[in-house]
Amino acid sequence: MEKGTLIKEGKAKRLYHTDEDGYVWVEYMDQATALNGKRKDHIVGKGVLNNQIDTMLFKMLMDNGIHTDFVKQLSDNEQLNLTVDIIPLEVVVRNAASGSFQRKFAVPYLQKFDHPVVEYFYKSDELDDPAINTSQALALGVIKPGESERLQELALQINDLLKARFAKAGLELVDFKVEFGKKADGEIILADEISPDSCRLVDLETRDSFDKDVFRKKTGDLVTTYQEVLNRLNDSQEEA
Amino acid sequence: MEKGTLIKEGKAKRLYHTDEDGYVWVEYMDQATALNGKRKDHIVGKGVLNNQIDTMLFKMLMDNGIHTDFVKQLSDNEQLNLTVDIIPLEVVVRNAASGSFQRKFAVPYLQKFDHPVVEYFYKSDELDDPAINTSQALALGVIKPGESERLQELALQINDLLKARFAKAGLELVDFKVEFGKKADGEIILADEISPDSCRLVDLETRDSFDKDVFRKKTGDLVTTYQEVLNRLNDSQEEA
Repeated sequence: MEKGTLIKEGKAKRLYHTDEDGYVWVEYMDQATALNGKRKDHIVGKGVLNNQIDTMLFKMLMDNGIHTDFVKQLSDNEQLNLTVDIIPLEVVVRNAASGSFQRKFAVPYLQKFDHPVVEYFYKSDELDDPAINTSQALALGVIKPGESERLQELALQINDLLKARFAKAGLELVDFKVEFGKKADGEIILADEISPDSCRLVDLETRDSFDKDVFRKKTGDLVTTYQEVLNRLNDSQEEA
Repeated sequence: MEKGTLIKEGKAKRLYHTDEDGYVWVEYMDQATALNGKRKDHIVGKGVLNNQIDTMLFKMLMDNGIHTDFVKQLSDNEQLNLTVDIIPLEVVVRNAASGSFQRKFAVPYLQKFDHPVVEYFYKSDELDDPAINTSQALALGVIKPGESERLQELALQINDLLKARFAKAGLELVDFKVEFGKKADGEIILADEISPDSCRLVDLETRDSFDKDVFRKKTGDLVTTYQEVLNRLNDSQEEA
């Protein structure tokens, strides 16, 4: 398969056409952003790390029955995905309080929830990605009846699998963001990426952050941190 | 029954104890607020109008099987309600875009929805009444499992009944806010009030506002407007 022309450049990935229908060529970039893109840094090595972490996590999810857009790794910083119609919702699952939830509801950092919280944010640069609920998303035509229930079911299954996998690597999954896409036949499958860019992870013992919060809050080196996540996932691979 | 000591003063009502357990004495005040209480005006006649409109609408809902905290009208501006534990959620139902929905999602004023939108806002002065979804409300202990489904079912039943009643009075119900309370036995019933303070109504023909928006936007006289709503409800009473 050959890499084609650029489809679009996101905050951390470039998507390209391929010479075969139904596939998209994904390049993980050496770039990190914060403040919804207002802060943007070039960070050598980040793309390779996220591509490897994402590949490992998507393979684990697929081994456990989750359907995704992942096809195969193409190089250190590239992978092949299925073409899907992305549902324009960021689906956030939270096991404990952090980030926008902590600010919005003034609860202590890392306060645990009895049941995971699921939130939707409407992907819209003009509207600044507002929180949106199921009936609002239906009214705006973002989803169809029944799709929200399926998204929540998948998000919670993925949460259970990721939580267990990270725990084996000595990390607590605080929260994460995923996106879903629709295949031509209407099936909703996991898309986009799962990496320390899109997860909040803390060490089970020390409670230190192992995710993009070290970049957002300028409390540590991003590449060192992401490399440690990858090492821990690799080291716990056999047991997983 | 005798009026007792003040329990609390809200934005538009004062609640008093009574000399009998299980009841609360409600006084509708001649006061209107906007901007979450930052603007506050004394408006002679408002309390009497809202008490009459609320009484008529709650009676209509009860005649149609909705359980509420309404017991009886006590005077022009007073009524007797059941004591309930208020669930600290403002439950908003929208049939068309206006207010915060219109601002948040940048859709045209009065754009109709195929299905009603239901939103929750967490009643918290410190947090400025933030939007909250079902799983967030569960995580914060605001509601128990199953209660959100019941709130939505009741809110949509009330919407159908109010929409039909206002339509007979030549008014379109754009949106409204209700609150619910729990009785000692755990039953969730409609509480608080329904009035032009808590509904958005527009004339079916002219699209003029017949609600608190005339006060919020300073486009008309509140008492004249609310009196017209009451007159129209009275005039269409026989047919209702």
